[in-house]
This record gives sequence, C-alpha cells and structure tokens, in this order.
Amino acid sequence: MTDAAASSSSSSSSAKWSSDRFFQTQAPPSNLREVSATAAEFVQRHMREGRKVVLVTSGGTTVPLEKNVVRFLDNFSAGTRGATSAEYFLSAGYAVIFMSRQHSLAPYTRHYSHTTNPFLDLLADPATHVHTDSPASSSGDDDITVLKQHVAHLRPILSAYHHARTSGLLHTVPFVTVNDYLWLLREMSRIMQPLGRSAMYYLAAAVSDFFIPSTNVPEHKIQSGKGSLTIQMDQVPKVLKPMVEQWVPEGYLVSFKLETDPQLLIPKAVGALQRYGHQLVIGNDLNRRKFEVVFVERASSNSQSTGRKREQLEVDGDKFEATWMRLSDSGPGREGGGKGGEKELEEDIIAELCTRHEQWIAAASAEQDRSRI
Amino acid sequence: MTDAAASSSSSSSSAKWSSDRFFQTQAPPSNLREVSATAAEFVQRHMREGRKVVLVTSGGTTVPLEKNVVRFLDNFSAGTRGATSAEYFLSAGYAVIFMSRQHSLAPYTRHYSHTTNPFLDLLADPATHVHTDSPASSSGDDDITVLKQHVAHLRPILSAYHHARTSGLLHTVPFVTVNDYLWLLREMSRIMQPLGRSAMYYLAAAVSDFFIPSTNVPEHKIQSGKGSLTIQMDQVPKVLKPMVEQWVPEGYLVSFKLETDPQLLIPKAVGALQRYGHQLVIGNDLNRRKFEVVFVERASSNSQSTGRKREQLEVDGDKFEATWMRLSDSGPGREGGGKGGEKELEEDIIAELCTRHEQWIAAASAEQDRSRI
Repeated sequence: MTDAAASSSSSSSSAKWSSDRFFQTQAPPSNLREVSATAAEFVQRHMREGRKVVLVTSGGTTVPLEKNVVRFLDNFSAGTRGATSAEYFLSAGYAVIFMSRQHSLAPYTRHYSHTTNPFLDLLADPATHVHTDSPASSSGDDDITVLKQHVAHLRPILSAYHHARTSGLLHTVPFVTVNDYLWLLREMSRIMQPLGRSAMYYLAAAVSDFFIPSTNVPEHKIQSGKGSLTIQMDQVPKVLKPMVEQWVPEGYLVSFKLETDPQLLIPKAVGALQRYGHQLVIGNDLNRRKFEVVFVERASSNSQSTGRKREQLEVDGDKFEATWMRLSDSGPGREGGGKGGEKELEEDIIAELCTRHEQWIAAASAEQDRSRI
Repeated sequence: MTDAAASSSSSSSSAKWSSDRFFQTQAPPSNLREVSATAAEFVQRHMREGRKVVLVTSGGTTVPLEKNVVRFLDNFSAGTRGATSAEYFLSAGYAVIFMSRQHSLAPYTRHYSHTTNPFLDLLADPATHVHTDSPASSSGDDDITVLKQHVAHLRPILSAYHHARTSGLLHTVPFVTVNDYLWLLREMSRIMQPLGRSAMYYLAAAVSDFFIPSTNVPEHKIQSGKGSLTIQMDQVPKVLKPMVEQWVPEGYLVSFKLETDPQLLIPKAVGALQRYGHQLVIGNDLNRRKFEVVFVERASSNSQSTGRKREQLEVDGDKFEATWMRLSDSGPGREGGGKGGEKELEEDIIAELCTRHEQWIAAASAEQDRSRI
C-alpha cells in the first residue's frame, strides 16, 4: 500500500483478463437475447435501405460492490457528448444505435434537464394563465401551453425529436454496469458486422478500467462497523483489440481518451492507436472538453483535406496526425447549427467524421477496383 | 485480504474519524458561505411566520477517487423518496429545505424523468399538429400545447410546482460529494437550530459510510496500465451523534436504514436509536422500499394513536416500537392522494410524521407548563 488511498499494482497475474476469459466466466445481462433481436431487426432494415449505421455509446459504467446493489464505483459522465453527437449523426442521415447508461442524457431531451432547465418552467401556470373568452376556457379543461418566450427554442428540438421517433432512425439500448456494457458492445458489433465499412463505432461511453469478477462480489451490503474498507479490482479486458481484429474488422472505429493531465493526452491517444490498430482517437481534457478536442490518427497520403490543419507526429518510426478542433475555430461565417441556437463542438466533430467515414468506404471500393483489374 | 474483493477491516486506528477531526482537517465546499446566507434568510422568514421547517436530504453521495474527478464511489439512490416526501411536506404546510444530490430527482419534476416519461412526448408535434382556421395558426408562430390526454395528469403537478415556487416554501441546496454533504448538513443544522422543536430533520440521503481523506486523494486520473486497483477508505464520522447532542438537540430527527438482508432491518434500526439517541428510524428493504417501510422508535407511554398497530420490542432492557406501513394497508376508503393519481407510500409516511412532530412540540410545552407550576 502506498500513501495514496487508491493505488494500482501489478501484484497478481490473475488481475489481467483476456476478453475470451471475461465472456467465458461472467454472466451476460438477463435480457440479452431480447435486446439483440430488436437491434438486429433495426440493422437489417437500414442495411436493406443502404443507410450508414453508427453505434454511439454514451454515459458512464458502474462497478457494483454488492450483488444487491447499494454501492458502486462510477465513472464521471453525464452523457452529453454521446447524446449531442447522436443528434448530429441523425441530421447527417445516419441510423443511430444509441447505447447509453440508463438515465444519462438522451438526444433531444438533453436540452431540458430537470435541474438545469426544468420543463415545468416552460409551461404557463394554469392558476395565473389569462383566459380568453371562449367557452372552452372556463370549463377547467383548458389547454396547457408552452410560454411564448420558449417556443422558438423548443420548436426545432421538438420537431427533430418527433422525426427521429417516427422515422425509425434512432434505436436505444440501455446499460448500467461495465459487465452489461461489454456484453452489449460485443452483441451490437456482431449484429452490425454485416454492414462492413458502412458501419461506424463511436465509443463515447466512459468505461471503467476496473471491474470485480462476479465470484468476488458479496451478496449483501458490506457492513461498515469495522473501520476501513478495502476494495480490490481487476483490470477490464481491452475489448478494442478483439473488436478491431475479430468482431468488426471493416468498421470505422472511433474511441475517446479523457485525461486530466494535458501532457498525457496525445501520447495516450497514439499509444491506443498503436495497441489496437483502430482508425481514430478523439482526445479531450476534462476541463476543456466542451470546447476543444483533438483527433489523433495514423498519417495517410490520400486523406482528403477538410480545411483543418493537421500536425504531423512521429512516434517509434510511425507517422501520426493530430487535428485540433476548437469551438472558436468555426469562424464567423459558420453560425450556430445547434438546435438550441448556440454552436456545439459536436457539430464539427460529426462533420469531420462523416468525411473520414466516406473516405474509409471509398478506399475499400478503390481497392476492389484495383483487384478487379 | 479475504477472498471477497471488497472487505472491511479494523486494521488501523486512524481509519476511525471523529466529527471534530473531520471538520478540522477536511475543506468545506467553496460556496459554503453563500449557500449558508441564503438558507439563513429562508429559515428566518419562516420562523417569523411561525411555520414548521423540515430539512429533507435526498440522493446519494460520492467519494471521488481523484481530485480532478473522473472516478468516484457512489451510493444507489435516484432520490425518489426525498423528492416525493418533499411534496407531501409542502402539502402539509411545512417550509422545506431540500438538500439533494445534484441531478437526482426533484419535487414535481420527478414525475417526468427524461427517460421513463420524457416530457417531449407530452407535447404535440408541430409538424403534424392539426391547425385551426384562425389566422395565428398559419403564421408559423403557433402555440405548442400539451396533448389532451396528458392534461389531467399534468395540471395538478404543474399547479403545485408553481405554488411551491411562488410561495417561497421550497429552498434547494445541492451537493455531490460526501464531504460537501457533511459540511452542508452541519451548516443547515446550525441555521435551523433556533427553530428548536419546530424543526424536523428527515435524512433520506444515501450517505456513503466511507470516504478518502483529502491528503490521500491523488491529483490526476489513476492510470490503469499496471493491473489491479486497490482502494482504501476510512469510515465517515457518525454525525448523527453530534447532531443530536450538540447541533440540534431540540429537533425531531428521522434517519433511514436501507438494507438488503431483511433480517438486519430492525436490529440495525434499534442499534442506531441506542447509539445516537434520536427520535425515529425508518427502515426499508432495498427490494420492498416502494411499498413497505417500518418506523422504529422508543416506546412512549403518551404516544398518540394514529390507528396503526405498533409491535412492542425489548432490546437490552429498553423498549421499542415497530410500526409497519404498507401501501395496501391504506385500505379502500383512503384513495390516492398522489399527484400522479396513484397512491404513494410517502403520503402515509409524512402523515404519520406530522402527528409525531406535533406530539414532540406538545411534549415540550407540557414540560414548560409543569415547570411553571
């Protein structure tokens, strides 16, 4: 034990889990078959219609300390990035599987959190509401209406929400624990695998690095009478590796790195690309994530310009590119596309991703053309 | 280390904290002075008006594992009990300080969680909305209205919400960490202390039993590269003791016990009453808490009947009473007072508490009368 209360050590080799060992020993969520069937139907429909599909994961995962859950370890995430991104993916014509932490923010409803912007404040008070002279008004059966000053802000959000619902372009899959998250990620990957390059995987969820194997989780609430509490956790298997190599080798894979030490951001992003071989890491600093991110990817000779400056990096002889995106970079000519009126960083992130995804699809066609000659 | 991943031990004596040591060494929330000033103004106003005031704490507390918070330990609580109870306290004429976990459920808005009952579903879709022939309707500047089928459910909630806001009977104090919770609980107690017996303290928040002293919390996100993670936490000081003995000796104090093992419920509740000397413990089982609770209190010869059966218990020569309350107990004659139409257990809980609080106030007057003779 070091003097810090939370410490990581490499003590026992059993703390390292392969994804195979994880899925062989940890139980799947009880509703896996049902969730899987409805998601498969969604994917098949959009595949038939030739639509691109994106899996957006969002929100934090929990690690229960007891089987009857009272206490759990959690990761910080309101789910803002995922919920906002899902809206822009829908605007860009994608079908979206929104796989998110239960009760984290959701597309469209996120604009009216019950604490920061409670919707009851949008509605006229029935008690003070000025009645017109029409007979219906005096019956006690009046309409409840949104206050005039909120209509302009609400209308486009409400329209987009109804469109997403009625068009069948948005499919929601909830999770709570890191265990459920891992099972569902593998299941969604398997279901989306036939989409090949038309599928994007946008892994914005804040996934715990640690978990407690089910055999080590006590049945009941840990009693506190005895002094200090020690929790020992194993490392979550790195599923990005099997995802790239086995589950969806053709998919366009985007992962996120959240750090609090800015010095670590790019080195950690490059490390992830080297380790897992996927397409893109979006790095963000905890305190700057609302207005700044950095795209880190392998340098490519045929990458299409999107008008943004790419910094060249070389690590261990490999070439990488870093593209910084800041809200102020949008310039005066590009006014707020955010449904709420204010420009949102996710608008630019999704626009950049759409270009890269198109290239990813085009690169495969070009290869096929070459192989045909 | 036992074979269970989470274990508690009595290893080091430094793991036990007195509340004095806690408040001497752990930093207060940065906005304590400001929060304190507005709460004091609220309490003074209602004291002048002779109103009873209740402090309702609600939601879970977190234990951050890093100063730049990414990971934290959390307690299960959506805040349903606290938010619902606050509504019934307001209906019963109390002024309410609602001290709750940020983003947990709040009075009135709780009826429309963005995931289980999203409010956007209540509103007519502007695109498909049938227009009347009035000129205003074609201007693109139409009202947004609540769909007819939701008006009856929403109207009383909306009215009560507006009444709580405009009457100044509801004051909100948010917290996130267990550290902030403890500081704010002491501060609210100090502010409410002059209310004497007119104050009730309804401690429904799910407070962590463990914390990490600030000197042991690392600055940045714990890196996961090295294998397993061990977290060691100290026991949170038992502040109920100084609360009863020093902070608010005249207050009517209600604490909660949540257990997952039904066998432990009453013994743990009795243990708390013996240890802290407060007035009432409300015990609830994790899986039955929506429809069943048990009031556990010291037996009193002059307790007024509320029509409910009290079971007599004797522990270590002391006499206690247990009053079970179940939703079905309300009987056919007592129809749903819940704003949403369905009967809620909190309606009965608050009714029982109001009676006990009245007796608590009356008992003091009787004592004063006797001492005057």
